[in-house]
Amino acid sequence: MNSEPARGGKPQNEKEGDKPAVRVALLGCGTVGSEVVRLLHEQSADLTARIGAPLEIVGIAVRRLGRARGGLPVDSGLFTTDALGLVKRDDVDVVVEVVGGIEPARSWLVEALRTGKSVVTANKALLAEDGAALHDAAADGNADLYYEASVAGAIPLLRPLRESLHGDRVTKVTGIVNGTTNFILSSMDATGAGFSEALEEATELGYAEADPTADVEGFDAAAKAAILASLAFHTRVTAADVFREGMTGVTAGDMASAKEMGCTIKLLCIAERGPDEAGVDSVSVRVHPAMIPRSHPLAGVGDAFNAVFVEAEAAGQLMFYGRGAGGTPTASAVLGDIVAAARNRLTGFRAPSESNYAHLPVRPIGAAVTRYHINLDVDDKPGVLAAVAGVFAKHEVSIATVRQSGREEDAKLVIVTHGAPDANLAATVESLSQLDIVRSIASVLRVEGGV
Amino acid sequence: MNSEPARGGKPQNEKEGDKPAVRVALLGCGTVGSEVVRLLHEQSADLTARIGAPLEIVGIAVRRLGRARGGLPVDSGLFTTDALGLVKRDDVDVVVEVVGGIEPARSWLVEALRTGKSVVTANKALLAEDGAALHDAAADGNADLYYEASVAGAIPLLRPLRESLHGDRVTKVTGIVNGTTNFILSSMDATGAGFSEALEEATELGYAEADPTADVEGFDAAAKAAILASLAFHTRVTAADVFREGMTGVTAGDMASAKEMGCTIKLLCIAERGPDEAGVDSVSVRVHPAMIPRSHPLAGVGDAFNAVFVEAEAAGQLMFYGRGAGGTPTASAVLGDIVAAARNRLTGFRAPSESNYAHLPVRPIGAAVTRYHINLDVDDKPGVLAAVAGVFAKHEVSIATVRQSGREEDAKLVIVTHGAPDANLAATVESLSQLDIVRSIASVLRVEGGV
Repeated sequence: MNSEPARGGKPQNEKEGDKPAVRVALLGCGTVGSEVVRLLHEQSADLTARIGAPLEIVGIAVRRLGRARGGLPVDSGLFTTDALGLVKRDDVDVVVEVVGGIEPARSWLVEALRTGKSVVTANKALLAEDGAALHDAAADGNADLYYEASVAGAIPLLRPLRESLHGDRVTKVTGIVNGTTNFILSSMDATGAGFSEALEEATELGYAEADPTADVEGFDAAAKAAILASLAFHTRVTAADVFREGMTGVTAGDMASAKEMGCTIKLLCIAERGPDEAGVDSVSVRVHPAMIPRSHPLAGVGDAFNAVFVEAEAAGQLMFYGRGAGGTPTASAVLGDIVAAARNRLTGFRAPSESNYAHLPVRPIGAAVTRYHINLDVDDKPGVLAAVAGVFAKHEVSIATVRQSGREEDAKLVIVTHGAPDANLAATVESLSQLDIVRSIASVLRVEGGV
Repeated sequence: MNSEPARGGKPQNEKEGDKPAVRVALLGCGTVGSEVVRLLHEQSADLTARIGAPLEIVGIAVRRLGRARGGLPVDSGLFTTDALGLVKRDDVDVVVEVVGGIEPARSWLVEALRTGKSVVTANKALLAEDGAALHDAAADGNADLYYEASVAGAIPLLRPLRESLHGDRVTKVTGIVNGTTNFILSSMDATGAGFSEALEEATELGYAEADPTADVEGFDAAAKAAILASLAFHTRVTAADVFREGMTGVTAGDMASAKEMGCTIKLLCIAERGPDEAGVDSVSVRVHPAMIPRSHPLAGVGDAFNAVFVEAEAAGQLMFYGRGAGGTPTASAVLGDIVAAARNRLTGFRAPSESNYAHLPVRPIGAAVTRYHINLDVDDKPGVLAAVAGVFAKHEVSIATVRQSGREEDAKLVIVTHGAPDANLAATVESLSQLDIVRSIASVLRVEGGV
């Protein structure tokens, strides 16, 4: 862009305006897609100046015709139900996919990439399930594959992981990457409500879908965890590699326990690198609710916001915060990728290709080192603590803190462990449940962030 | 990188290892430079895998020879005092500058860029004072200019602004970009200490330099504000365009006033875009202490951490958080840029060039719309509030809230205004100081973040 644009804030530029347009095919025109269309038209002059040529939408694939979308009339001539036909057109440079799901999205994008078209996608499920198919097709076609919108919506997160941190060694990524569950847990924390009540509120306010399974059972977060782990550790990680525990089991009592510890509960996606028990450099990728101290930067992330906490050897602690969902924020990330892909079309440059050289093994959850907070109702008689402590010792789990509170016959033990293999911790809980002196296990939660 | 690396976490790669090295010249080997050398050697295998070829340091320019640095022996043959000679060598691909200051750094980097060498620099003063010289030289030489480390150290911030947000319209950037002053203000907030006492503590702990002027008077933050504003608004902004007010005037009383309002005080760098009084799209760039509500994400940024809050039309609110200074965190950002530049050397690609098409005018501070918090000691008699309110009205400043507290003859008025041109607010304060019924103006602070 060595040309001389006009002064005074006008981004028009004759030399640039004269360049042929970069032609965009949009697959899907729902909440995100229609915002992409609107913003692309509204900011047309700015985008042209930034790219060096105008962007032009040449086709929009939708499931059903007959409805105006993205401010475009029904008879604009742009809408089609033949997505594959649109992808195959010779006059398409960049394919933008905001449909979601594995098929037929995968077939469309593989076709686009193999034939050298640039792809911008927000499809986390597909990337987590079979990112390899896309990356391989991109390599075959020497094509750009951008997917910033697939994780944490508007937050510029993947480009930093993909590029800025490439001189560093990322050791851990801990994220709140699902707005629905964060809204529910923030509300449980604030009001003392139980899960069902908080979910109901979230549904009424439009934060939760009619079927909230993908969110509350952690499927959505697990897909994002796989994408983040792949980028952070230069290793292909798929959704199948991610241990997943949803947050439907978090009770008002758990939240109260957390509060007593100066903590709150968040549904976290965690991707961690380090040596396993045998000393092998490996990664653990998991999604589960966890207690974190209120002093942790993630604890203050309320409402439906997302945030991702990154720890790297040289950079230290970093956090990225913003809106993780919604049509307009997600469209911001999609448009940023479209600008990058369009610039590359003009210059012949390419995005950094997939970096998967490290091929680190992924540990099963049992071999992940975690910490537990366990809340027990026990008989109030001498020797209880000794018996309980013996169970921990048998499973080689070291206890960090114990708090004992007795009220007549009803006594409570609150135990926080040091880090231990999750399998040992789970076995400890199982053994405790079989002790006669343990009346009930009131709460078991994993702990993160240095409680 | 289509090659097949060995399995098992080993980043060595025969095909890539065979490629000739990308040759790096380092200018400066102090705190940051020696960490760059250390990390570059320590992570050599990983960096080679990520780049596709090894990195090799071919020379290090220092002011004085005779000292081992970065783990390299004195007689390594790498050290030289002739920086310009090093830059001009034919066997240099990437020039990394961590010396700082305007000259001779500018001459070195302009020479490097003009002759097509890639430049990675952490030099905020130079970029803010005369970034144009560097960008123009980069355009002339078709060379890469990367400077992630110049603002907010380890935080990946410039790449997101330079690339990820290019499909969006940034409206405001509000940052805590100076760790020293943030440490001092956080300490004043926590302990009630005055400025001098907190500065002394910061000096003892190594957070403040012997001469803290650049930090506490806001020069450092102003340079960073210019760089952020240039990127956010596609407009060349220099240090001279930035209004700067240091934080040496912030008193323990100011901090107490802020606390009473549910606020804290931070030294903020602010870059804002919007229509001025005449409706002209323009930017305001300023550094000054300001009250922000404790609920604002920036309020919780303690210690010497940095954070930058970005507001964009589509993305909404974003925040980037991390370590803004220190040898190792800054080296992380420098190394990320080295990897990007080195990759480009191999592929022939280039970083996105400077984007300055918008040419927005920069408003003087008087025309910036700000809000004031004013704490007055007044006579306790009827008519005082009416007289005071009259002064605000005369200067066309609208009052948001007034709190009046009288104790015998000593009464206090705490006033927070709505947004108004800063010149009107300053004139209001001047007029108030001349009112007989105003005994003293206890505190005047700008307010940000929706108090």
